[in-house]
Amino acid sequence: MKKIGIIGKTGKREPAEMVKKLLPWLSKKKLEIYIDIETAGALRMEGTPRSQIPSLVDMIIVFGGDGTMISVARLVADKGVPILGVNIGGLGFLTAVQKDDLYEVLEKVLSGGCPVEERMMLNACVYRHSECIAENVVMNDVVVNKGALARIIDLEAYIDHTYVTTFKADGLIVSTPTGSTGYALSAGGPIVYPTLNSIILAPICPHTLTNRPTILPDHVQVEIMLRSGNEDVFLTLDGQVGFSLKQNDIIQVKKSQHSTRFFTPCEIDYFKILRTKLRWGER
Amino acid sequence: MKKIGIIGKTGKREPAEMVKKLLPWLSKKKLEIYIDIETAGALRMEGTPRSQIPSLVDMIIVFGGDGTMISVARLVADKGVPILGVNIGGLGFLTAVQKDDLYEVLEKVLSGGCPVEERMMLNACVYRHSECIAENVVMNDVVVNKGALARIIDLEAYIDHTYVTTFKADGLIVSTPTGSTGYALSAGGPIVYPTLNSIILAPICPHTLTNRPTILPDHVQVEIMLRSGNEDVFLTLDGQVGFSLKQNDIIQVKKSQHSTRFFTPCEIDYFKILRTKLRWGER
Amino acid sequence: MKKIGIIGKTGKREPAEMVKKLLPWLSKKKLEIYIDIETAGALRMEGTPRSQIPSLVDMIIVFGGDGTMISVARLVADKGVPILGVNIGGLGFLTAVQKDDLYEVLEKVLSGGCPVEERMMLNACVYRHSECIAENVVMNDVVVNKGALARIIDLEAYIDHTYVTTFKADGLIVSTPTGSTGYALSAGGPIVYPTLNSIILAPICPHTLTNRPTILPDHVQVEIMLRSGNEDVFLTLDGQVGFSLKQNDIIQVKKSQHSTRFFTPCEIDYFKILRTKLRWGER
Amino acid sequence: MKKIGIIGKTGKREPAEMVKKLLPWLSKKKLEIYIDIETAGALRMEGTPRSQIPSLVDMIIVFGGDGTMISVARLVADKGVPILGVNIGGLGFLTAVQKDDLYEVLEKVLSGGCPVEERMMLNACVYRHSECIAENVVMNDVVVNKGALARIIDLEAYIDHTYVTTFKADGLIVSTPTGSTGYALSAGGPIVYPTLNSIILAPICPHTLTNRPTILPDHVQVEIMLRSGNEDVFLTLDGQVGFSLKQNDIIQVKKSQHSTRFFTPCEIDYFKILRTKLRWGER
Repeated sequence: MKKIGIIGKTGKREPAEMVKKLLPWLSKKKLEIYIDIETAGALRMEGTPRSQIPSLVDMIIVFGGDGTMISVARLVADKGVPILGVNIGGLGFLTAVQKDDLYEVLEKVLSGGCPVEERMMLNACVYRHSECIAENVVMNDVVVNKGALARIIDLEAYIDHTYVTTFKADGLIVSTPTGSTGYALSAGGPIVYPTLNSIILAPICPHTLTNRPTILPDHVQVEIMLRSGNEDVFLTLDGQVGFSLKQNDIIQVKKSQHSTRFFTPCEIDYFKILRTKLRWGER
Repeated sequence: MKKIGIIGKTGKREPAEMVKKLLPWLSKKKLEIYIDIETAGALRMEGTPRSQIPSLVDMIIVFGGDGTMISVARLVADKGVPILGVNIGGLGFLTAVQKDDLYEVLEKVLSGGCPVEERMMLNACVYRHSECIAENVVMNDVVVNKGALARIIDLEAYIDHTYVTTFKADGLIVSTPTGSTGYALSAGGPIVYPTLNSIILAPICPHTLTNRPTILPDHVQVEIMLRSGNEDVFLTLDGQVGFSLKQNDIIQVKKSQHSTRFFTPCEIDYFKILRTKLRWGER
Repeated sequence: MKKIGIIGKTGKREPAEMVKKLLPWLSKKKLEIYIDIETAGALRMEGTPRSQIPSLVDMIIVFGGDGTMISVARLVADKGVPILGVNIGGLGFLTAVQKDDLYEVLEKVLSGGCPVEERMMLNACVYRHSECIAENVVMNDVVVNKGALARIIDLEAYIDHTYVTTFKADGLIVSTPTGSTGYALSAGGPIVYPTLNSIILAPICPHTLTNRPTILPDHVQVEIMLRSGNEDVFLTLDGQVGFSLKQNDIIQVKKSQHSTRFFTPCEIDYFKILRTKLRWGER
Repeated sequence: MKKIGIIGKTGKREPAEMVKKLLPWLSKKKLEIYIDIETAGALRMEGTPRSQIPSLVDMIIVFGGDGTMISVARLVADKGVPILGVNIGGLGFLTAVQKDDLYEVLEKVLSGGCPVEERMMLNACVYRHSECIAENVVMNDVVVNKGALARIIDLEAYIDHTYVTTFKADGLIVSTPTGSTGYALSAGGPIVYPTLNSIILAPICPHTLTNRPTILPDHVQVEIMLRSGNEDVFLTLDGQVGFSLKQNDIIQVKKSQHSTRFFTPCEIDYFKILRTKLRWGER
């Protein structure tokens, strides 16, 4: 670990403040540092474009929340560079390190003493007339969603080419275990342990009440065909990237060959995060 | 009951076929008949514009499904003309009369022997800069919904000017008891008996899992302020009419002074409809 | 308001401590005080049996939680004596007065300046061979529940003698609006505004997934017939009183002619209680 | 496949009737047949005790429903004998063969042309004072459940010795994927594909609304400590075997070393069963 990337949440002051304090500490360790342009700019330093950082470094420190972590995860997907998330607000599912513990955790990370957890990602392709016209890798979820003015839409689902059902719903979420505590949870899905090899299929406000969220093995291929025409329907990837769909488009989702690697400090376990974020122990 | 209006579902052949058989029967009763333009056209007769029918007749026979009934209900809201729904497909919540029972039921209706049920409606106003810029009466629901590409939106809710909470969700449904078996049911709401004097408030995919559907007395005024900016957010009325919202718009919803009057043949009760439509008695 | 009853939660020290401080304040007002035996005993005073207090006083101050409030509510049901709930732990749905606000609120109550809210209660009768063998009034809920070792049970439900369905479930909850934030909420029911004239019917873990909670007008009579034999099935009233049921027993539930009267200090509204108890504003 | 066991659902006539027709067909194949005592008795034949059948045969044909399949699965757990389920009523999740297809499927099974699916089972141990006082293998679920008159109970849960939370609930279900469409589904759990290597943890009517069902990898060990005293609490295994629990008992659940082997005729896939059993395609 000689070359360290630093990426901060955009539009926030805290990352720059935290990086300012961190730099002298890092420089003592004789590490090469690459800071994203916005954060560097706030410190009147020269920065590196976000998209170039992954190919230059051995690890990335992210100052932000889960949203920033997810966008960085997509950025490094094909590089396998491990990420350390430091939360600048409340505890996150992915930004497990608290500000105050940063130095202690970093010491452990740099000495190789901090375990790395592999999180599966999903690969989504949109097929139109048998051609893949858009392809993306996501950390959390692939969502097919109707526009606000659209009526209920028909989505024909297949698992490994076997017909499942035609969901009549506001939409359909295909989620990783990591994404299970995101949008899928709001749609009625379960909590899925982050390292369980699985894919979650959760309909959004389904007309058929027995269309419950379904948990599938991670080796299956999910295909969703948009049956409805004349309606605005969109694909969103990790809630951050959008794509307009047409009738008979097929969205093919399967486990990505890439996975994300997160440093997971031992001090905080998944259930502690759940207890805190979901206020377990309270009503 | 001397003047009868007839409205058929648009784009379907069945209404015209059923009206064709019905006309000779009605003419024997010496009734004045007003048929909507589309249905009349299919029978090569002269029709009456839908919007004019309510002010010309004593009752309306609707051939269609729940969607047609709801749009007719909005049409007659301020006239109080009772409606008889004849379903052309499967059993509906509002089109309780089966094709085969039509003549028997009509005999009862014309002789005054068929009870009429009053169903409350909701009045929705959109306030922008303290001015009501759009007003509508609905039979089922008033829905504030984010666009497909929008992120979670913030909706500040008030009941009789008392702050409730700020929902972080895909949207918010304000529903009548009649609407409780529609979109609100898909969003996790309960079944509300159609004549219970109440308003249902149901968040759509709320971020906060304890934001459960809430049932309010029908005399309250619900106000929803759209807090989010920079996002596409829409108001939809009965899933049929749409309206684009802006940041700080306030949607005020309260019981309408109008209500809809449905003929309810005694042969079929609400629970029988529930058992059939929701497949009770089966898993 | 000349005669004041005081009832404390059993098995707790706090009520006696709070009463000790309150007595001098009350004695200055020249009020007659009746304290329950346990609380009085802890203060080495002579007390009055709980069950006699309602017929001796003009109002009752309860030091405890929602459980104590509910048992006192059943106690005073046929007397109409208003109750003021002072919570000794966290905020309760019914014990809206905080320790620190007690004197200010009491001043208002004694001067007649504190509004009183009427809460409906339910009357439950168990009919065996056409005879009512047990009758009770409840504040929260009437629950038919299978024993732990029993298999799913069959409960035939009727509303005003009209057949609803035969629930295959762990049990069935018939709840008041007050009870909607209790057991019924855990079973998937909605939040019902406490003064809405309604009865909630919520199945517990129903086999049929479309058997959703149902909200009924408060003038209906609910009848539940236990169809299963050879299984342990019990009726519980407000979670506090139990009764063993036999095959073909009919549990008849309707609005009680009695209601409970709670003092409701203006400083705290129902939605504030919801926000606090259900952690709204947090995930 | 030379020795065939036959087990019928107890208390039903159909198994004997179906076996009567099947016997001549089987005898032509020169197979050795072992029929359970009850079914054999109905045919005035000598039978074999159910519990002895697994160690005598190469496969077992079960005539019954899912309940019979589950009890046979527990019976053969340590023998690995494959089971073919023939439903005598409606389609089952486990009895995938329809009466009319029996001979065609059997032909395939006997010729080795029918695939066998391995389904994981769970092993449950009750520890009292550090000693395992009861041990069982289950096909569907291990349930800790309060008695009908008991109040909410406290269940402290651990995953691989890491504290999860203390559930305040009616109980807790630990389920296999096979069991996910059973009791866990009624308690709000998701559908889990039967071959996904996972364990489902689903609280029953939890007081804390964010205590959502959780899906865990199958290699974890779940431990549940009963914290409540003075309440009737029971352990039930596959809904068929019961055991009374005491305060501080620990229920340890992990993947069993045994699994069940079901013949799965290719004609019917899991999603077809879901569509039929859960009435997908209908509301």
